Amino acid sequence: MTDNPTSSYFEAFFKPRGIALIGASANPHKWGFRVLTNMVAGGYQGLICPVNPKGGTLLGLQVYPSLKAIPNSVNLAVITIPAPLVPQALEDCAVKGIRSIVVISSGFSETGPEGRGLETTINRIARNRGLHFIGPNTMGIFSAESKLHALMPPLQPLTGKVSYVSQSGNVGVQMLAWGKERGVGFSKFVSSGNEGDLQCEDYLEYFSEDPETKILLAYIEGLENGRRFLDMARKATRTKPLILFKSGKSEAGTKAALSHSGALAGQYRLYQAAFQQAGVIEAETSDNLLDYTAAFLHYPLPKGNKIAILTRGGGWGVIAADACREWGLELAPLSERLIQKLDKVLPVYWSRGNPLDMAATLNTDAFPICLEEVIKEETVDGIIALGVEFGKRTSQMVERLREMNLLGGIEIGKAPDEHRDIQLIMELMAVHQKPIVMVSGLSTFTKSYASAQRKTVLFPTPERAARAMGKLWLYSRYLQRQEQS
Amino acid sequence: MTDNPTSSYFEAFFKPRGIALIGASANPHKWGFRVLTNMVAGGYQGLICPVNPKGGTLLGLQVYPSLKAIPNSVNLAVITIPAPLVPQALEDCAVKGIRSIVVISSGFSETGPEGRGLETTINRIARNRGLHFIGPNTMGIFSAESKLHALMPPLQPLTGKVSYVSQSGNVGVQMLAWGKERGVGFSKFVSSGNEGDLQCEDYLEYFSEDPETKILLAYIEGLENGRRFLDMARKATRTKPLILFKSGKSEAGTKAALSHSGALAGQYRLYQAAFQQAGVIEAETSDNLLDYTAAFLHYPLPKGNKIAILTRGGGWGVIAADACREWGLELAPLSERLIQKLDKVLPVYWSRGNPLDMAATLNTDAFPICLEEVIKEETVDGIIALGVEFGKRTSQMVERLREMNLLGGIEIGKAPDEHRDIQLIMELMAVHQKPIVMVSGLSTFTKSYASAQRKTVLFPTPERAARAMGKLWLYSRYLQRQEQS
Repeated sequence: MTDNPTSSYFEAFFKPRGIALIGASANPHKWGFRVLTNMVAGGYQGLICPVNPKGGTLLGLQVYPSLKAIPNSVNLAVITIPAPLVPQALEDCAVKGIRSIVVISSGFSETGPEGRGLETTINRIARNRGLHFIGPNTMGIFSAESKLHALMPPLQPLTGKVSYVSQSGNVGVQMLAWGKERGVGFSKFVSSGNEGDLQCEDYLEYFSEDPETKILLAYIEGLENGRRFLDMARKATRTKPLILFKSGKSEAGTKAALSHSGALAGQYRLYQAAFQQAGVIEAETSDNLLDYTAAFLHYPLPKGNKIAILTRGGGWGVIAADACREWGLELAPLSERLIQKLDKVLPVYWSRGNPLDMAATLNTDAFPICLEEVIKEETVDGIIALGVEFGKRTSQMVERLREMNLLGGIEIGKAPDEHRDIQLIMELMAVHQKPIVMVSGLSTFTKSYASAQRKTVLFPTPERAARAMGKLWLYSRYLQRQEQS
Repeated sequence: MTDNPTSSYFEAFFKPRGIALIGASANPHKWGFRVLTNMVAGGYQGLICPVNPKGGTLLGLQVYPSLKAIPNSVNLAVITIPAPLVPQALEDCAVKGIRSIVVISSGFSETGPEGRGLETTINRIARNRGLHFIGPNTMGIFSAESKLHALMPPLQPLTGKVSYVSQSGNVGVQMLAWGKERGVGFSKFVSSGNEGDLQCEDYLEYFSEDPETKILLAYIEGLENGRRFLDMARKATRTKPLILFKSGKSEAGTKAALSHSGALAGQYRLYQAAFQQAGVIEAETSDNLLDYTAAFLHYPLPKGNKIAILTRGGGWGVIAADACREWGLELAPLSERLIQKLDKVLPVYWSRGNPLDMAATLNTDAFPICLEEVIKEETVDGIIALGVEFGKRTSQMVERLREMNLLGGIEIGKAPDEHRDIQLIMELMAVHQKPIVMVSGLSTFTKSYASAQRKTVLFPTPERAARAMGKLWLYSRYLQRQEQS
């Protein structure tokens, strides 16, 4: 990071020593109040200095009438005052020695000619005074290390190894919220707003070199400098997956994007091809943006695209097979050796092929034995394992019968601990370095496991698992080709 | 129904007077135990007569050593004994006067030549003796009216107006389980198994005339008699939506389907075109099967495809606009009158176009006012309303600050009741008979509202809402064309 001239002001964005909130307010209907409450409730441990001409105290903090009245050294400013006042605030920041600024205020280029003029003004001030700003018209930033929640909406994201830039504040914060349910934790987040100064590729470049970041995430509506973005992406994807969701795909969407962020949404097909060439993983919908992120966080990359499907029911096997084909995966052939081994474990009517249908066996040990035998196969690059949490429903029903006093003398063996299979799968993945992507229809449990233990993720349908596996393979193949060339 | 010769034995399947369970068992590892426990725990109020040569009692019920030992009149038999014993059991049923039978036992055509022979045998017996059976190799049936849970897995589905046939037991019961989370309640369910006798079109035909059924649902792997299915579908879709998920789309999937249900999966593209012509709504993935069902249950059909998107954030508006285009919808133009009206309610920077971006207004009354004004527009056939549950997060954060004793004298107005907007939307839909499809990122709340009150459904993403709206429009257009021709 020391070679990067941007690193020092980026450090101040994500690890500030102290923060001035210019526009702090006691009025709950103003963003200056809401951002402050989020910062306080978020637990930021450095100094927070609310700035408002009225002075006084707010949420237990002393309010300073002006920036220069702050006696301490702060190195980050967050601005929520009306747009016409922002130029002077930037000048004040320069005087105070604050070089990193988050301009939450809206009313700039997104609103028409007058706002565009104002944005030109703050750009010029920033350039002349050596400042850098995020926004304007941003929803704010988040940094796990600093417990910094300089955000408009009240959110406590799960913390982790994903760093994320979003050209839409709303889409950004929604993903932070969904991360909690999907076992996706964040290291850093930026709502990039109008990108008057810093642009999405700047943040992604910083994340790509940040040791706290394992995966880069981006929501993009349009790129001002596509070439610069792709150069950044090619470099970043050599070491970290970059997962991206591009909107403004249709004419209708492009028009909407224009009036929203002022960015030229551009021709989607061109983007798509360029992203692919740069090793970027594209998410097709907002739903699968986090699906893919979770997969990259929790599963090793497959070395090839030969997949085995393990299922407890034929129908789901068929659906999984369809989805594998759709997402670039093939069904691995099963060896005679393997079939003979599994003959000893499975009911006589098992499929003896791939999808490997365990034929509704009630033997709870069959599943782990199958998994272990299949993952050992040389021809198998990965497994999609359906029905991982089997047994949970049965134990609920048994409990119900017990309450109804209907079980009498009947002894029902304990259902296996639902975590047993999951733990085994995680062990097998660690040993064999092949993905075993898990599917469970019991999404509630999946969520609680994923978010409480944050050690893995289960997908609610085979289609979503196959899509995610397909993306793991896409990136793995990209890396292989890069190595060869 | 009186004209239908099939109705009497169908009545016995879904409203049986009494049931014999042939193969009842005290061994918890046998399906004869599990199906019995599910029937008992499910609360079926008629007579349950377990049959097992050992006699005795089971779950408080007297066990009969044979069918003929049952003194009472029962008109439904459920069979779980091994396949080779099933022919004799069918003969016994005929003697006892039971004409409706559910053959849960597996080991028939799905297992190879020998099983195929056995299936031919039971077909012949049924024809000769005037019996009808579901299966073999079925996971069972469910009927809300009779509280009948003759199912292998322990499930308590939400009850409602959807009736469903599935060619896969596992896919079938999974949808029943998901229905609970998605506000989709079931009237009747059949896992159709190998369809040795009754076929999926028979069930759907019965459902199409059943007054308890509002929506038909089907999971299909292959059709033995495509023409008969399509005749049924064309007739059924005149009055009720038929939502269908077809698997076995790829060669890999087709192969898997063959070994699973013995059905010829057939050429997917041909199916697809034929389904469309018959007015069938096709679900592309297992996820959106229930999405579409919930949409048809809870939203009126749009009369055209001109949609307004109402959003609190530009980004989600862009995503929704893209999705509308993808699923056959167009963005309605907003009239000058409407724009002028909304100018009075919304912040000066609102989009003044469609998507209608409310520009992060903190005025909680803006949303209902906008909705009401927009739905009144003649050019608008429906609305996709994003961020319906706005305000919930804010009230959580305020609560947190209160607990931290940080609010001091600051008075924060109560966030509007989260249900207020939902109730208003439901009223507007009733008055204007146009769909206002709701989207909320707070999926947990969505679920609890949907399943507790079961009055509506909210979608977690704009893409899923737009897909569902697109299907509502597709069916509406189909009905319009039928009327014209």
